[in-house]
Amino acid sequence: MPRHTLVADIADPGATRVTIVGDEAKHAIRVKRVREGDTIRVLDGKGHAWQAGVLEARKSLVLELGERDVLPDVRPRLELATATPKGGRVDKMIDQLGQLGVAAWRPLNTQLGVVEPGANKLERLRRIADETVKQAVLPRPLRIEADLDLHAALEPASFDGPIVVADAMGKPYDPTGADHIRLLIGPEGGFTEQEYESMSGRGVRLMSLGTTVLRIETAAVAAASVMLDQERRAAG
Amino acid sequence: MPRHTLVADIADPGATRVTIVGDEAKHAIRVKRVREGDTIRVLDGKGHAWQAGVLEARKSLVLELGERDVLPDVRPRLELATATPKGGRVDKMIDQLGQLGVAAWRPLNTQLGVVEPGANKLERLRRIADETVKQAVLPRPLRIEADLDLHAALEPASFDGPIVVADAMGKPYDPTGADHIRLLIGPEGGFTEQEYESMSGRGVRLMSLGTTVLRIETAAVAAASVMLDQERRAAG
Repeated sequence: MPRHTLVADIADPGATRVTIVGDEAKHAIRVKRVREGDTIRVLDGKGHAWQAGVLEARKSLVLELGERDVLPDVRPRLELATATPKGGRVDKMIDQLGQLGVAAWRPLNTQLGVVEPGANKLERLRRIADETVKQAVLPRPLRIEADLDLHAALEPASFDGPIVVADAMGKPYDPTGADHIRLLIGPEGGFTEQEYESMSGRGVRLMSLGTTVLRIETAAVAAASVMLDQERRAAG
Repeated sequence: MPRHTLVADIADPGATRVTIVGDEAKHAIRVKRVREGDTIRVLDGKGHAWQAGVLEARKSLVLELGERDVLPDVRPRLELATATPKGGRVDKMIDQLGQLGVAAWRPLNTQLGVVEPGANKLERLRRIADETVKQAVLPRPLRIEADLDLHAALEPASFDGPIVVADAMGKPYDPTGADHIRLLIGPEGGFTEQEYESMSGRGVRLMSLGTTVLRIETAAVAAASVMLDQERRAAG
């Protein structure tokens, strides 16, 4: 494994030499003790990765880029809209979903939901998603998007692929073969009768995750794992 | 949903009235504000659940137990042995694995592993596993067991069911139909050549979880979710 991984904004994908400045350089040199002659890994968050030799590690980091690798995109693109777990639980959820290669997350507003993250919190979640790119060697970061009301999430104009809801009343997940899937997870108080009726009108699939009661973030990670596994299996 | 859930040591499963004292009673009355006339849920951590009417809520909690429910056991019994994530990450992992209905967890010692939790930490993890029983309405708590060396984990005398290892070189998980399965997850530095040879000698299955790099705790939750889902599906 390379000594360190960093994300750099590499405008020219054919570049052979880049200079990293600012916090990324400081962190690499002072905290990770990257030195001249080391080999590190560089990601651009746009699907590319390089092994890079360190030519200089003083105030800035001068790197010689090796051959460019193209990181495989995670298929299908899975977009989650979930009730927002409280406190630090949402941070951990974003990191875990990012590691799995989930494409996007946004807060889901429902009748019995309570927490709605503000703009500051969404910005913090974006920073967490960006950090996960390095650790999980992701082609691109999980996108954090604006909140969505359940009725809007179900409108065909909002999303034209299959919509799946994690729910104790559901069945095991069968693969859809679709390239773009939306997964909804409600609050710990559940959905109302009226909400179930709207879902049934839109033909959503209810997906069961066993007989125990899962917190939002565990349901999100478990459902995303099973869905990505099922779809990969079906795609061969 | 009931106003509160607590775990009580109910010696006689045919009991109709129980008195809860000590911390559980204090927490229910002072923090959760359980009052006379409320309905709460009682679990015994041995597979049973009751709705209970509160007859008295002063220093102790006197409950009238309704009909006894038998909570379904989670099948198969999945036992995890994993490298120990650092800091608070192991706490969160134990809570998440408990929610999924994993039967047991223990630290796995390998050549490139670094953190080994001491007796105090294992005791703290046991308390977390006990807490999860209430939130996830589990038939019984996740068992926290003593650490295990990889070579011991692979010995037929130690475990006679299928052994699965989460590994990037593996294939999607196929159900075994077994009632008792062991899952191993190595440290972030991976396994050594020698360790792969021992695994291959024992006929372990390597299970892939996609193309991204997962931290120990995310791999544990993702692998357990997929395995339980696959086995449930196969069992019909």
